[in-house]
Amino acid sequence: MDVKLLHTADWHLGKKLHGFDMLPDQSYILEQILQLAKEEKVDAIMITGDIYDRAIASNEAIQLGNQTFRKWNIDEQFPLLMISGNHDSATRLATGKEWFAANHFHLNTTIKESLTPITLGDCQFYLLPYVELIEARFFVENEGLVEEAPNSLSQVLQIIIQEMQKTFDPSKKHIFIGHLFVAGSLRQESETPLEIGGLQSVASDLFDVFDYAAFGHLHSATANLKGKVRYSGSPLKYSVGEYRDPKGVRVINTDLLADDFEQATRFVPLQPLREVYHLEASFEDLLYQRGKLKEYANDYLSVSLSNEEVIMQLMNQLRPLYPYLLNVTRKERQRLESATKRIPLSKINQPEALIQDFFVRLYEEPLTEQQQNWIKDAMNQVSGKDES
Amino acid sequence: MDVKLLHTADWHLGKKLHGFDMLPDQSYILEQILQLAKEEKVDAIMITGDIYDRAIASNEAIQLGNQTFRKWNIDEQFPLLMISGNHDSATRLATGKEWFAANHFHLNTTIKESLTPITLGDCQFYLLPYVELIEARFFVENEGLVEEAPNSLSQVLQIIIQEMQKTFDPSKKHIFIGHLFVAGSLRQESETPLEIGGLQSVASDLFDVFDYAAFGHLHSATANLKGKVRYSGSPLKYSVGEYRDPKGVRVINTDLLADDFEQATRFVPLQPLREVYHLEASFEDLLYQRGKLKEYANDYLSVSLSNEEVIMQLMNQLRPLYPYLLNVTRKERQRLESATKRIPLSKINQPEALIQDFFVRLYEEPLTEQQQNWIKDAMNQVSGKDES
Repeated sequence: MDVKLLHTADWHLGKKLHGFDMLPDQSYILEQILQLAKEEKVDAIMITGDIYDRAIASNEAIQLGNQTFRKWNIDEQFPLLMISGNHDSATRLATGKEWFAANHFHLNTTIKESLTPITLGDCQFYLLPYVELIEARFFVENEGLVEEAPNSLSQVLQIIIQEMQKTFDPSKKHIFIGHLFVAGSLRQESETPLEIGGLQSVASDLFDVFDYAAFGHLHSATANLKGKVRYSGSPLKYSVGEYRDPKGVRVINTDLLADDFEQATRFVPLQPLREVYHLEASFEDLLYQRGKLKEYANDYLSVSLSNEEVIMQLMNQLRPLYPYLLNVTRKERQRLESATKRIPLSKINQPEALIQDFFVRLYEEPLTEQQQNWIKDAMNQVSGKDES
Repeated sequence: MDVKLLHTADWHLGKKLHGFDMLPDQSYILEQILQLAKEEKVDAIMITGDIYDRAIASNEAIQLGNQTFRKWNIDEQFPLLMISGNHDSATRLATGKEWFAANHFHLNTTIKESLTPITLGDCQFYLLPYVELIEARFFVENEGLVEEAPNSLSQVLQIIIQEMQKTFDPSKKHIFIGHLFVAGSLRQESETPLEIGGLQSVASDLFDVFDYAAFGHLHSATANLKGKVRYSGSPLKYSVGEYRDPKGVRVINTDLLADDFEQATRFVPLQPLREVYHLEASFEDLLYQRGKLKEYANDYLSVSLSNEEVIMQLMNQLRPLYPYLLNVTRKERQRLESATKRIPLSKINQPEALIQDFFVRLYEEPLTEQQQNWIKDAMNQVSGKDES
């Protein structure tokens, strides 16, 4: 029986975006994913790590997680294939897994478990949780898979994958589930492997022996499109830097994998509760909601402000209009900040020159004579000299 | 079918005793409880709250908890009836409970769940997790059980128990499972109810409608032996103050409950990995391991020292002989400490008099003239006066 799969990852339940609690966004998007799974009539859902944002998740995050798994697996009877990611605590996430399995909720949190495939229809699944290099090295040594483990994660993984291959049923398709930074290839691999989020990269071509390799860790669904490797990406934008990324899940038709891999592993975008926008605008545009600005008022907004002058209570003025305003960056402010670093040390001990310099940089014109006198008077008062 | 039950509570996994990690003791005693359950061929195990010592338990504590439940429920197939206690986080402990139930592991963490009895053989079980008064009041109001909830926990519980009684099958026995401080009776209940560990007391006679009321919270199995109320007590001594308490579990033969309640709910003592002893001894007794002291060397030891003199590096001298030495208290030291509080304020500004006083209290003889001169010189040097 051919199976249809849904692939999602990097939920980061409990994540805050510039201080905004994203649980409502997460609850909303998880509900959409469930609806999609029902519409597409998928046979199982793969959740490839980073369920929670922190090893010790908040009570509220755990509540959303537990409620989601209950709804998906117990109420809607979707088989789940899940692994722990680098943000999760494998130990904490592991609670209940022995009972979950009885209801086709397969949660792996150790390397050893990855060597026993889960069979579903015409597919064998190999679920490898996030693992540190040192742990992986110990594992291959202690299991007697190798005399002395190599030092690169790619090479250790190659040994683990060779073990997996021993259990390959040739009449079935083979699907890898992992939480890794996949980059480069074994042939090109340099002596200094890439790292992201503390995670050493592994070579894409390692996964050529699989029919599909479902990954978590990189938040962009287009992060690496080599060979059998695919990321689902995070279902939401978890930083302003991701504002242009399409967000969604992948739906995999395993019967098409051999013929048209791209079509078989299509990306399905989702509509979030609130979008993340990054805009360039002036304070006046924002204040009078010029152009399309009103349309963005209920989304997460990151603004690059074009104004050069100081605006008092900037955030307090904008927050009533844009309750989900994340941050305001200023080109002028940036220029000033870098300029500040270039103030010659000699001026530090000449307060009047320093103030003069500050005004020039801020207003781009020199102080008037009157202003200079005021500063002089003020400095004299501070230093205790009285010219009266 | 009559059922035989094992009742245990207050494991406090992850608890430290004077800095000593008790996980090995806990692992050992849990294994003994399992062996007893197998020998006694019990039909189910009741675990009446405070599984973990803290709301956010350590990874190691969670590992022991998960491993214990897996072994008892999945490997050995014992039905488990469990509730969260005041030390547990109900939300965190709840993870997996919907899957557990399919394997007769019944874990209640909300009041609402307590109204649906679990039936096992000829018994109906009502599992009420630890709950704050305010939460219980909201519950009875929101469920429409009462117009306005009363202010005492006993009275709110009475309403909840009345609801439970509506589902009583008269052909069955009824067993209450709770994590409460049971004390006094409804008739005597004063306007200022007792509290322990932040938990308001509830009246014993509330539980007269049950055939057995299994409690957690109080660590002594003999804490309250009124009516149908029984504590199992903690399986280990979790403070020096408990050193005389027998520790173990209760084994309940439900067929005997009506005829001989005491015999039907017998207490079975357990042998811990290390005992907790409290001794009076001299430093010399301890150092030369006089009497039975050598026998205590591998147990947790709290010593009340009979010596009056100062002993340098006391703990460092004793620890090699008594690696599990918890603490040493000193009668003399106590006398000194209380004496210290009685130093007249006037002396605080007379350093020499203060030092003199200190030496008298410590050595019970006055300073020599030479010693007094040394102090005088030292004080002069400190204050900058030079008498040379």
